[in-house]
Amino acid sequence: MILIGERINGMFTDVKQAIAEKNEKVIQDLARRQTEAGAKYLDVNVGTAAADQEGTIKWLVETIQKTCSTGLCLDSQKPAVIAAGLSVMNTENGGILNSTPLNKKSDEDVLDKYLDMADSAGPGVGVITLTMDKNGVPQDTDTRVAIAAEIVQKAMERGFDPQRLYIDPIILPVKVPNAQSQPGNILNAIEQIKYLAEPSPHITMGLSNLSQGTNERSLINRVFLAMAISRGMDSAIVEVLDKQLMDVVATSEMLMDKQIYSDSFLKVYSTT
Amino acid sequence: MILIGERINGMFTDVKQAIAEKNEKVIQDLARRQTEAGAKYLDVNVGTAAADQEGTIKWLVETIQKTCSTGLCLDSQKPAVIAAGLSVMNTENGGILNSTPLNKKSDEDVLDKYLDMADSAGPGVGVITLTMDKNGVPQDTDTRVAIAAEIVQKAMERGFDPQRLYIDPIILPVKVPNAQSQPGNILNAIEQIKYLAEPSPHITMGLSNLSQGTNERSLINRVFLAMAISRGMDSAIVEVLDKQLMDVVATSEMLMDKQIYSDSFLKVYSTT
Repeated sequence: MILIGERINGMFTDVKQAIAEKNEKVIQDLARRQTEAGAKYLDVNVGTAAADQEGTIKWLVETIQKTCSTGLCLDSQKPAVIAAGLSVMNTENGGILNSTPLNKKSDEDVLDKYLDMADSAGPGVGVITLTMDKNGVPQDTDTRVAIAAEIVQKAMERGFDPQRLYIDPIILPVKVPNAQSQPGNILNAIEQIKYLAEPSPHITMGLSNLSQGTNERSLINRVFLAMAISRGMDSAIVEVLDKQLMDVVATSEMLMDKQIYSDSFLKVYSTT
Repeated sequence: MILIGERINGMFTDVKQAIAEKNEKVIQDLARRQTEAGAKYLDVNVGTAAADQEGTIKWLVETIQKTCSTGLCLDSQKPAVIAAGLSVMNTENGGILNSTPLNKKSDEDVLDKYLDMADSAGPGVGVITLTMDKNGVPQDTDTRVAIAAEIVQKAMERGFDPQRLYIDPIILPVKVPNAQSQPGNILNAIEQIKYLAEPSPHITMGLSNLSQGTNERSLINRVFLAMAISRGMDSAIVEVLDKQLMDVVATSEMLMDKQIYSDSFLKVYSTT
């Protein structure tokens, strides 16, 4: 699993405050702890509070890079904020741009903009692409897969390797009215999306979104993560500091025959 | 989920000793506690130690029925032991006969014998049928599904409602060498078996077998159970006294839209 640590996000109170106070230590601690816990990439999202989003993402990237060399996942819906982060980002351990839909009413070419930025940054930089278009987030399996197919096709037509795509079928909070059919639809979509190219594009999601507002966040995240891994999801933006969740990742990978069973498979997984 | 409590089995030391000493209290405590925990049926297996298996299963059935009216799941590979249990079993809350393969080298008609016994016991009694034939347990998905299809066909031909079948794709210990591809094969088999008839036969398994000999039994069982429920498994023989496992059942059912989400969905599930 390609795990992306979710914690350096201005939506979290501690990160929001650290951004406001330019407190490097809080950000660097989160960077190191998530790396030690198994994050291959660290998501970097300035949140909504910062007035100067471009300056803030540069500060976050530089602050993290002073303490560790983990790959970064620049997270913004604004191409200009991503570009600002990229201007100071070290890409020696790869990187991910998070995220773009297929298109938007206000910006038909947003996908191309993100792919352009990834190409400028180098072949080790991927892009998270949402199964979403100018009509919004689809509710059913088929439209999700159709949008994913269009994304893969557009990438291939311009010579962008599908293995640099992280397709995100967009998991919505299960607590929202009428949303309870979505987890099942998304599992079915994952199963189909992995066959859109050979080798397959990556499949990822912002897992914690599923349990927003519930009393059982870790449990709900863990159960759905196991289900999604069993369908072929090979990446996720998660709380890597949740040990129980990491144990479910290790167990799911072992049961799906991606990691060898040994009596200490949990420990082996967390240290490799 | 139709949960079958696994604990009244002579393979467990406490039950083995209770059988040897004819200690009713141990058996009755397990019957009540499993029922309160959410078991719809109680598995009843005399184990291998008892010399008089037919007398022992009768004693177990009568002992349990003195304290609760939960449906029983008579568990033996010997038709004569099942028949002995049935001779004293109350079927007002249904029942299950556990289990028969499609056929055996030594007994080509074993499936018919189990279906005959279920028919004699009444329409509320089902049969667990293993995806196994005279050649043994298949290792791949396709042979499992082919055997299941033959079982469903044989049942339908004689007028045995497929909804009384509990098809068991036979999960093997993941720790056994070369067995790590089996969990994935079984998930794929589950997905196909549920389409063999309309309405679908039930699908069940002896879940704990998967984690035999490992250090992380509950975790491995929980992760695979979530995966299997997401593919359509609607029954399992499990340790219902494992609260964490029961929480995963409730969460899986909620995420698969079989139970309505509420902030107290775990509590609601455990009391309905």
